Amino acid sequence: MNMDLDITVILHAVDALFDRELDFLLELARHPSARGQEQSAQGFIARELGGLGYEVDSWQIDVADISGLPGFSPVIGDYDNAVGTLRSRSKRGRSLILNGHIDVVPTGPLDMWERAPFDSHIDGDWMGGRGAGDMKAGLASNLFAIEALKHLGRHPAADEFFESVVEEDCTGNGALARLQRGYRADPALIPEPLAEKLVSSQVGVIWIQVRLKGLPTHVAYAGSGANAIEAAIPLFEALHLLEGRMNAQECRHHNYAGLSHALNLNIGKIEGGDWASSVLAWCVFDVRMGAFSGQNLDDVRHMIEGAIFDAARNHPFLASNRPEVVHIGFAAEGYSFKDDQSAAARAAVGALDRAHCLVVGKPLEHEAITATTDARFFGLYADTPARLWRGRGGDPRVQRACRSRMPAPHHPIDHPVHRRLVRPEGCITHARRRHRVHRPNPHWQGQSRCLQRHARACPSGPCRARRLGPCQPGGRRSAGFYTGLRPYSGHERH
Amino acid sequence: MNMDLDITVILHAVDALFDRELDFLLELARHPSARGQEQSAQGFIARELGGLGYEVDSWQIDVADISGLPGFSPVIGDYDNAVGTLRSRSKRGRSLILNGHIDVVPTGPLDMWERAPFDSHIDGDWMGGRGAGDMKAGLASNLFAIEALKHLGRHPAADEFFESVVEEDCTGNGALARLQRGYRADPALIPEPLAEKLVSSQVGVIWIQVRLKGLPTHVAYAGSGANAIEAAIPLFEALHLLEGRMNAQECRHHNYAGLSHALNLNIGKIEGGDWASSVLAWCVFDVRMGAFSGQNLDDVRHMIEGAIFDAARNHPFLASNRPEVVHIGFAAEGYSFKDDQSAAARAAVGALDRAHCLVVGKPLEHEAITATTDARFFGLYADTPARLWRGRGGDPRVQRACRSRMPAPHHPIDHPVHRRLVRPEGCITHARRRHRVHRPNPHWQGQSRCLQRHARACPSGPCRARRLGPCQPGGRRSAGFYTGLRPYSGHERH
Repeated sequence: MNMDLDITVILHAVDALFDRELDFLLELARHPSARGQEQSAQGFIARELGGLGYEVDSWQIDVADISGLPGFSPVIGDYDNAVGTLRSRSKRGRSLILNGHIDVVPTGPLDMWERAPFDSHIDGDWMGGRGAGDMKAGLASNLFAIEALKHLGRHPAADEFFESVVEEDCTGNGALARLQRGYRADPALIPEPLAEKLVSSQVGVIWIQVRLKGLPTHVAYAGSGANAIEAAIPLFEALHLLEGRMNAQECRHHNYAGLSHALNLNIGKIEGGDWASSVLAWCVFDVRMGAFSGQNLDDVRHMIEGAIFDAARNHPFLASNRPEVVHIGFAAEGYSFKDDQSAAARAAVGALDRAHCLVVGKPLEHEAITATTDARFFGLYADTPARLWRGRGGDPRVQRACRSRMPAPHHPIDHPVHRRLVRPEGCITHARRRHRVHRPNPHWQGQSRCLQRHARACPSGPCRARRLGPCQPGGRRSAGFYTGLRPYSGHERH
Repeated sequence: MNMDLDITVILHAVDALFDRELDFLLELARHPSARGQEQSAQGFIARELGGLGYEVDSWQIDVADISGLPGFSPVIGDYDNAVGTLRSRSKRGRSLILNGHIDVVPTGPLDMWERAPFDSHIDGDWMGGRGAGDMKAGLASNLFAIEALKHLGRHPAADEFFESVVEEDCTGNGALARLQRGYRADPALIPEPLAEKLVSSQVGVIWIQVRLKGLPTHVAYAGSGANAIEAAIPLFEALHLLEGRMNAQECRHHNYAGLSHALNLNIGKIEGGDWASSVLAWCVFDVRMGAFSGQNLDDVRHMIEGAIFDAARNHPFLASNRPEVVHIGFAAEGYSFKDDQSAAARAAVGALDRAHCLVVGKPLEHEAITATTDARFFGLYADTPARLWRGRGGDPRVQRACRSRMPAPHHPIDHPVHRRLVRPEGCITHARRRHRVHRPNPHWQGQSRCLQRHARACPSGPCRARRLGPCQPGGRRSAGFYTGLRPYSGHERH
C-alpha cells in the first residue's frame, strides 16, 4: 500500500478536475431519470465509465432473479443497473464500493418549476435540476475523486466498484440486484446529500396501496351510492392514529429515543373517479409508513392492515366492501449502523472520522435519519459495513429557505406556491467559478475543493450557505474522505 | 293532416321492425362513445340516416361558435354532432324534433364489468352494454318509430329532425350547438330512460374543479410539509355543509318542496401526488353541485367558492395558499317544464298524455327529477316546449337489484364488488325473442311493442321486471306516443 501522497497534492488534483466534474454533473442531470426512465442516464454513465477505463457491466434487472431475496420490494417491471469496476493489479489493499442511485424522485407539477426540472443549470453558487443533488452530485463525486487519484498516477490496490443503481427512492431493488449479481467489497460508501454527518441509523419504510370500490350511482341519487373518496377519509384518520401509537415513547428504537416523530405516515398519491357527475366508483391511495430498525415488516404490515380493516368495519359501506390492501413498492427494513460493532465496521467508521476531521476540522457527528437508503442492502444482507456519509444538499423544503437567492422567473408565475419548488434540490456549490468571475477571494479556492459539500444545506432563516463564509484555507476538503479510505482501497502507482 | 291510420296498424308496423331495431341498437352500443370518442358512433348514425333517406348534417362543433351563447358550459376541445332531417313536402303539419344524446357516462374500472362495457349483447330479456339504455335505446326508438310510419307509406306533414348530440352528460354543448346551427321545431321529444313519467322539472348542475397545491417535502420530514389531499378534507366538509343549507326546506323550489335532498353535491373525481414517499404537492378534485330552477348560476358559484375559501382560511396551510377554483364542465340552469303554461306547451303535454293513456292505460304522471338533461336548451333558450318522457331503463344502481338475473361470469371474478357494475345500464326488454324461443305466451307479444319500455326499472327487492308480468294485451304500446304526436308532425301518404 502506497501512502506517499501528501493530502494537498490530492486536493490539487481534485481541483484540477472540478470543471470537468461540473460538466459531467450538468449533463448527467439532464437525463430525466425518474422511475422507469433511467435508461438514458445509465447509458451515459456506462459510456463515461468505459471511456475512463472501467470494466463496465450494464444489465437489465430481471425481477425474477431478485424476487426471492431478502430485502426485495414488490414491483412491476424491469429496469437497468450499471456498475463499473476498476480492477486492481496487486489486490493487496481492501476493496471498496462507491455506490449511488441514478433514480430521482418525481418532478411534481411542471407548473411549479421555474425552469424545466431536467434543464440542469448553474446559477451563481448553485446548480439546479431535479436529481442534481439527490444524488447525481454524489455519483459525480465518487467518480471524480477516483479520477483525481488516477491523474496522480495512482491505481487501486484492490478492486473498486463504481455503482449506479436504480430504484433507491422507491424499492431499493437496484441495490439488491447488484448484490444478487455478486458485487462485494470490504466497505461501501454512499454519498447521499444532506448534512455532512455519518448516518447512524435509518428507518424502515413500507409502501402500501389501498383500493376502495364505491357503489357507482348517478349523482342524481348520490345518497344511495357510496362515494369511494369520502369512504377513504376515516381510513386516513385510522392510519394517523396508528402512526401516533407507533411513535409513542415506549415504542421507539433506542436510536430515536429523543425523536418524537421518527416514523412518518404519508398519503402520497390518490386517484379516483372518472368525472364530477358519477358517484366515485373507485379510489386508490398510496401510503408510506416508517418502521424502526428491528421491527418485523410483516408485523408492521399487519398493524397497518388492522387499522384499515377496523376502520372499514365501522363504515356503513366499507363494512361489507372490505378495502383491498396491496403491497407494492418499499418493503425496506430499518437498519442501525451503530449497532454493528464488528471490527470491519469500526475500522470503516474510524477511517471516515479521520477523513472528516482532516477536511472539516472537527469530529464526525452521527445522526439517526427518518428515511431509508440503499445502505441496508450492504449491512443487512451482505455483511458489508456501509457508511452513509451525508454531503450537503437540498430537497424541496430546503430550497424554500433559499428563495432569496432565486432569480426572477423567466416567465411570470402568478401562483404564490409556484416559486417554492424552483430548483428543489441540487444546490451545487460553484464557488470556484464564482471566485474566478466575481470574487477574487483566495478562501473560496479551498471551499471549491469540498466536492462532498457541493450541495449546501439552507435551513430556515437566512441562507446558511451564505452565512457559512469561506472555508478555512487548506481545510474541509472532501477529497480527503477518499484519501481517508486508503487503508481500504489504497492506491498505488501505475 | 291524415288521421286515417288505426293505432293497431301502426303498432304492427313497429313490431315488424323490432328485430331490425334491436340489431341497430346492438351495433350502436358497440361504439364506445364516451366523452371525446363519439366520432365513430356519430358516423354510424349519419350513415344510417343517409340510408334511410334523411338529409344528413354532420358537423364538428367549433366551441368558438357557441361559447358566447346562453347555456354554454366551459369545455376543452371540439366534438361532432349529427342531425338528420326528413323534409316535409307539404309542410302542413307542425314540425318535430326527436332528440337524443350519443355520449355515455364513463365506464368506471373495467374490472368491475363482467363483459367489456361496449360488448353489447342480449341475454334473455335484457340488453347489456354501457350506453345501451342511457340513451342509445332512445335514439333507436326515435328512429324506428318514424321508420314504422314510413313503412306504412306515411311521410311527415312537417319537417322532422332526428338529432344525435354529444356532451349531454357533461355540458350540454351538443344540444346548444344544434340550436346555434338553426334547428328549430314546434316541440321536441327526448326519450331519456327511466320511469315512464313526464319530467316536470329538472335541476341545474354546476361542475367545478378545485386545485390545491401542497408544500412538497421528503416524507422523512412529513410534518414540515402540507399534504394537499389531507388539506382537501375540510373543504369536502364545508361543501357538504353548504349542500345541507341549499336543501333546507325554506330554500327549495316549489317543484321540490317534498324532496329533502334534491340538490346533490358529489366529489366525483380526485387526483393528486406522484408516489407514496413524497408529501402530496398537488391535489385536484372535481365537484358536481345541483341548483334549483330559477337560481342564478353565478350566485351558486359564489356560494360554492365562498364555502371553499372560508374553509381554506381556517386551514394552517391553505390560509396562505388559496385553492384555485376552475369552472369547467356543466354550467346548466335548472328548468321547470311545468311552469311553462303557454298554449304550445299545454298542447304538447296534452298530446303526450293522450298517447300515454292509449299505451299504458292510465294518465301520465309527472315527476321533478334531480338531474339535468338537454331539455333546458329547448325550453330556456329556444322557446320550444321540450318534453322529456322517461322510458324505463337502468343505471348502475338499478342493475344491482338485478344480480339474480346475471349469468355466471365468463372469467372468475373474486372481488365481492366486481359483479355490481355488470351491465350497469341498458337493460333492454327482449321479450319477443324470449317469447319465440321459450314462452309461447301471447301476452308477451303486446309487451314486445313497448319500444319506450326497452329498459325496465329494477328497484331494490325482487327484480321488478320479473314481477311486472305480461302487459295487457293490446295495451302499453309505446309507438302510440309517436301516434299521439301526430297533431304536431303528422304523417301523410307518399
